[in-house]
Amino acid sequence: MSKPKGFEKPAGVRDYLPHAVARLRRIEQQVLACMDRWGYRQIMTPTMEYYDTVGVASSTSDQKLFKLLNNRGTTMVLRSDITAPIARVVASLLKGEPLPIRLSYHANVFRAIEEEAGREAEFFQTGVELVGDDSPEADAEVVALAIESLQAAGVERFRIALGHVGFLNGLLEEVLPERLEDQENLKHDLLNRDYVGYRNTISGLRLSSSQADKLEGILRLRGGREICEQALELSGNPLARASIEHLYKVWEVLEAYDVSEHVLVDLTMIGDFSYYTGMTFEGYAAEIGSPVASGGRYDKLLKQFGRNVPATGFALKTNRILDGVRVKETSKQLPVLVQYTADYRKEGLAKATLLRSEGKVVVTTLIMGTGEIQAPEHGLLHQGYEEIITFS
Amino acid sequence: MSKPKGFEKPAGVRDYLPHAVARLRRIEQQVLACMDRWGYRQIMTPTMEYYDTVGVASSTSDQKLFKLLNNRGTTMVLRSDITAPIARVVASLLKGEPLPIRLSYHANVFRAIEEEAGREAEFFQTGVELVGDDSPEADAEVVALAIESLQAAGVERFRIALGHVGFLNGLLEEVLPERLEDQENLKHDLLNRDYVGYRNTISGLRLSSSQADKLEGILRLRGGREICEQALELSGNPLARASIEHLYKVWEVLEAYDVSEHVLVDLTMIGDFSYYTGMTFEGYAAEIGSPVASGGRYDKLLKQFGRNVPATGFALKTNRILDGVRVKETSKQLPVLVQYTADYRKEGLAKATLLRSEGKVVVTTLIMGTGEIQAPEHGLLHQGYEEIITFS
Repeated sequence: MSKPKGFEKPAGVRDYLPHAVARLRRIEQQVLACMDRWGYRQIMTPTMEYYDTVGVASSTSDQKLFKLLNNRGTTMVLRSDITAPIARVVASLLKGEPLPIRLSYHANVFRAIEEEAGREAEFFQTGVELVGDDSPEADAEVVALAIESLQAAGVERFRIALGHVGFLNGLLEEVLPERLEDQENLKHDLLNRDYVGYRNTISGLRLSSSQADKLEGILRLRGGREICEQALELSGNPLARASIEHLYKVWEVLEAYDVSEHVLVDLTMIGDFSYYTGMTFEGYAAEIGSPVASGGRYDKLLKQFGRNVPATGFALKTNRILDGVRVKETSKQLPVLVQYTADYRKEGLAKATLLRSEGKVVVTTLIMGTGEIQAPEHGLLHQGYEEIITFS
Repeated sequence: MSKPKGFEKPAGVRDYLPHAVARLRRIEQQVLACMDRWGYRQIMTPTMEYYDTVGVASSTSDQKLFKLLNNRGTTMVLRSDITAPIARVVASLLKGEPLPIRLSYHANVFRAIEEEAGREAEFFQTGVELVGDDSPEADAEVVALAIESLQAAGVERFRIALGHVGFLNGLLEEVLPERLEDQENLKHDLLNRDYVGYRNTISGLRLSSSQADKLEGILRLRGGREICEQALELSGNPLARASIEHLYKVWEVLEAYDVSEHVLVDLTMIGDFSYYTGMTFEGYAAEIGSPVASGGRYDKLLKQFGRNVPATGFALKTNRILDGVRVKETSKQLPVLVQYTADYRKEGLAKATLLRSEGKVVVTTLIMGTGEIQAPEHGLLHQGYEEIITFS
């Protein structure tokens, strides 16, 4: 193991130079402002949480958690999502707060394993949680807000894939009752969107052809609202049917929001979080392969923190939007350079103060020696000056 | 060691509920906007850095660093300040950038030991670094910007204490040449502002009375610009004298900025960071015992990262301002409640969209059952509604 050199930063984390910060900040502010208009109020939680509480409750697998010890020898984790910390707050500081509770956040989260695969170990999420409402109305609200948030972030072309973990669970229970390991294998294939693997797994299960057809049938359940009807034909399982009835109602509310044009039903999508219990969704932008938003209903998580209430929410994958979505560049404000000789310092600095009060960006400099006028240098940070004012 | 309960968060870290987030965000935005007008561009660095590079270069003592191992077994630290990471960036990503470089930041930093003393283990700093200019003009610029930043943060009554580590170092060299341990003990007393301890330490040194008087004399060197003249009378050491000459010039520039009314000279103040090499300063607010800003010149730090250039800067102690400074509460915008029966969902949601586009905060709800109008509940998050609009 070689010692890192003086200028090195760890793999998987990044520095944001000013032009990237400006874009990230614009996304952050516009999305949070959008969430604010929907009545979601912003919350902030610590970077470190107890492993035994939030670490365990989070959806992140143990090997992906960054762990450290505090001075008392207790294991801590760097938060791997914000949903579990917010559940903790809702069950503690906000335990007397009337339901529903609407909260928003913008925060960095950490995943230990990602750096190995060249992925980011620290990245930003911007999202909401709607706690205490188990209705389709609430699920539709967060989907509609996700759509408006993506637009606020500058994502112009995108689709929301809407699913429900209950449909697949019901179908698997119907076809493979009590064969939990086989069920897990099939879920694993779908989670990885490995449809060839899914078909191969089915082939290995020695099912009747009608049973195999049923399991394969789910692969066709991607499309518009009509998918819900086809799904009801595929499975008679009560859980599967109730899930579809719920999705029908979510769709109906999305139509009332006038946003269903952005949505398609995808019953092969089960969400990548183990804590989802109902509707799930993912947002895909035209330019980017992996999702830029993901969300869903998690009705069991709050109970782990001692407040048994349902919840639904989503998070934008803010870094993917930052890196992947082309945004119209807003014209940068060039600074004014005010330069002065020592004799005219007071006049130069007063001019700078005046210009700043008018909203200008002003850099000041003392002209040394001969009073020769310094040429503005073109760097990464400032591409020259809007104007040069000299007091000499 | 008892297991943490479900609702517990670690000691020394905190949750920010929406009203605190709103205040913190306002401070953050107004201070960064102020720094932006002075030509400082915002940068962001990772939460984790290598222990061997940034960890060692930071001013934080080893026991106060939060350490963790990455997957490769390399020791990492949670950043304990932003100055060292920025030095790394200036020496790597920005190594071709023409000088001077002006950068700003707002970031959370971590100190492991603080939680034991009931202090915060994670808190925010908002600051700037001015790299590549060793002139008094540059030092005065960051002091003047610190003053405007405190005002932007809503701190109305404050004083800047201005010092120079070179004066004390010169005085100690003059009186106690090569007695490094005694020098360190005296510095330690001043760092803790323990003037009784400082006198006791002097008594224990077996000095002549004129030597002891000289060392005690520094305790009187707190006041206006006249302190510089008294300091020149106290020490003939070249380093001490050069330091005072530098402070004189800084003061002259501060007068040109028209901000010297906020400043007093305090030569007992040496700054709490081991990397300071010249001018140092601290900001004190009327309401708060400990500093709300601290800064100074650090001309050796960049060299550790391979770019040998001088630098000066400061950071606001943002959490102390958040907690300690009384700010006029801006009136909170109450949300509008739009409620509707299922039959009037489309109309209700359209009204909500319209109101949001007008800048209103709108919460929507479906009226269940009898269509009875839901009373607005008063919670911590929303103190009632501005208006209730019903579609039924």
